[in-house]
Amino acid sequence: MKNQASVAVVYHSVTGTTAQLAEAALLGASGVEGIRAYPVQIEGRDIHEGRYRNSVALEAMGEADALIFGSPTFMGCVSGQFKAFADATSDIWFQRRWRGKLAAGITVGNNPSGDQLNTIQYLSILANQHGMLWVGIDLPGGFDPAGRNRMGAQSGLIAHAPGGELNPADTATASYLGARVAHLALRFTTVTMDLVDA
Amino acid sequence: MKNQASVAVVYHSVTGTTAQLAEAALLGASGVEGIRAYPVQIEGRDIHEGRYRNSVALEAMGEADALIFGSPTFMGCVSGQFKAFADATSDIWFQRRWRGKLAAGITVGNNPSGDQLNTIQYLSILANQHGMLWVGIDLPGGFDPAGRNRMGAQSGLIAHAPGGELNPADTATASYLGARVAHLALRFTTVTMDLVDA
Amino acid sequence: MKNQASVAVVYHSVTGTTAQLAEAALLGASGVEGIRAYPVQIEGRDIHEGRYRNSVALEAMGEADALIFGSPTFMGCVSGQFKAFADATSDIWFQRRWRGKLAAGITVGNNPSGDQLNTIQYLSILANQHGMLWVGIDLPGGFDPAGRNRMGAQSGLIAHAPGGELNPADTATASYLGARVAHLALRFTTVTMDLVDA
Amino acid sequence: MKNQASVAVVYHSVTGTTAQLAEAALLGASGVEGIRAYPVQIEGRDIHEGRYRNSVALEAMGEADALIFGSPTFMGCVSGQFKAFADATSDIWFQRRWRGKLAAGITVGNNPSGDQLNTIQYLSILANQHGMLWVGIDLPGGFDPAGRNRMGAQSGLIAHAPGGELNPADTATASYLGARVAHLALRFTTVTMDLVDA
Repeated sequence: MKNQASVAVVYHSVTGTTAQLAEAALLGASGVEGIRAYPVQIEGRDIHEGRYRNSVALEAMGEADALIFGSPTFMGCVSGQFKAFADATSDIWFQRRWRGKLAAGITVGNNPSGDQLNTIQYLSILANQHGMLWVGIDLPGGFDPAGRNRMGAQSGLIAHAPGGELNPADTATASYLGARVAHLALRFTTVTMDLVDA
Repeated sequence: MKNQASVAVVYHSVTGTTAQLAEAALLGASGVEGIRAYPVQIEGRDIHEGRYRNSVALEAMGEADALIFGSPTFMGCVSGQFKAFADATSDIWFQRRWRGKLAAGITVGNNPSGDQLNTIQYLSILANQHGMLWVGIDLPGGFDPAGRNRMGAQSGLIAHAPGGELNPADTATASYLGARVAHLALRFTTVTMDLVDA
Repeated sequence: MKNQASVAVVYHSVTGTTAQLAEAALLGASGVEGIRAYPVQIEGRDIHEGRYRNSVALEAMGEADALIFGSPTFMGCVSGQFKAFADATSDIWFQRRWRGKLAAGITVGNNPSGDQLNTIQYLSILANQHGMLWVGIDLPGGFDPAGRNRMGAQSGLIAHAPGGELNPADTATASYLGARVAHLALRFTTVTMDLVDA
Repeated sequence: MKNQASVAVVYHSVTGTTAQLAEAALLGASGVEGIRAYPVQIEGRDIHEGRYRNSVALEAMGEADALIFGSPTFMGCVSGQFKAFADATSDIWFQRRWRGKLAAGITVGNNPSGDQLNTIQYLSILANQHGMLWVGIDLPGGFDPAGRNRMGAQSGLIAHAPGGELNPADTATASYLGARVAHLALRFTTVTMDLVDA
């Protein structure tokens, strides 16, 4: 049996904290048997006059069964660089090439409740535009013995990194979300393969 | 083969338009082979001093593999009655009894763009709190030959019923969403059964 | 000089924390010279089959130049009881009776970032429906020497009360917001009076 | 009497429809006696590797008493270019240089209800971060004899331009919003001057 599925973590990082959370999500996902997980980093040098242009990166994302989007929360939403990338997916949107994939979101801010939810909601809107299924965090805040989801958001991972310092509980939550997405991606992909074989 | 899954449409209706959309979603879902679809209506008489109390209804929802939430958009969000129901799911939330189920949303308003998106976003937040997977509409607005998703929302069904008159295109979109949720529920349930049998 | 203006704090409280924040906002507002500040509490007993009915309370709110809305964040948004009240303002909305007033929002939750922003955004949508002007918090999070706005939200007051225990910094932020709204209400009312006198 | 106030319309336009709405808002604002209204256009050529750099433009905005933000809705929110500009206001945010100003929002999309509300909500969040007061539209949808606010949004102007064709009712709504902001800016500025003279 080779029930294989893939998870891409698509992120933009400015100070490095989003990159660390992306790495944790990748670890969580790749720890699930049968999963291939890989990063796709959004970089400023691919943005020309405000437009993102990197067809190789867009192609790489499209090969995954699930995408985990990551961006810092900056001035109340995803970074301008992440938004430039999102804008560049309009052809993919029109051709419905990502529909049926799974999606999830990760963000981090300097304050405990500084508009990170708005970033997660935007990532969810982006996923819905693409016809993807949104996967949140099924751990109510404040009850996990390991302290995961200490911030209490369930629509996606909200991390709080005052002074740019990540909390291990947030990193653990990123791993948990990565693993959750991976498990769900396997379930989805498996069936597709069963149906194809039948 | 008895790959069976179930879809419940949980809705509150004031003027009857949400009820009609709920019915259309039910038709769409039950048209999918192997699917049992049924309605659960939220009613004002079950709300006492602002608190919803109908454990039979809550139990009935819990048996479904997928829930489609429906509410009119009233004063910028779901109706107070729907919110009273949502509040009554806090025990279910704490016990994580709905996690892993699929969820989708339906709403209707008197104006084309009168805050219906906020209602859909709330329904999505509610689903995420329960650890459910959110299913939107994978039809970009304005391109479907049958006119479905004419309003252009993809996070859920946004209907526009001026003077309480539904547009057939919106009803057709509700059916499409019901069928989409049903197909995805079958995929999910199938795998679960496979794993149980293995 | 009798530049007088009034501020009403309209709130629903379940455990008492929202009531305490409402009281702090009232203190902040009434500490401003020329301001009359008073509470209007939303109570479950005024809700019949999900509909709020208390015309005296609605009338009392309408006399204020500014309204500060307060609700706990429960299952991802304002409480069902608060929403029942909001629904009951639809006649006022239609008659545009609150337009031009100032508005602000207060909420509290058990988690640092557990969807409180969504509650504030709903309160803002409600205010916008009424044609009111929305007043947030002009203190960036994490920089105030007195620790006010420690949570970092600026669209309204987001408090975090784990186990129902309020943090004094959040109470101080509520007072600050009350005073800010009061000062702005005075500015607005003053001009109106000048124009009337001219 | 020279009770003067100023309104800047800060916008990014791709196809020209946002530019037309911005022009209509300017007309509405400058039609109010004592108001100076001027545009500040966000342009792609000022964005380098995703970062907006035009200190002259930022300075020009800062001189206004009220800012009307305008952006197309693209992939579910403001354009990447507009977001790059928003990110560039972080120093202004930290120094609280825009606090107390008025703000409003304008957007346009190809669908009647295609996530434009999310764009308006982001613009409102941006304004709240800056400590500005948010001004919406005090015209309920569907009742204005002149057809203004036909889309029914009140948190800001939501226009619908299928095929890039603006509806005159939406342009009229933009003018109305411009005039409303101008009148409110005059009220605010007047008092400030009174206080300074006293």
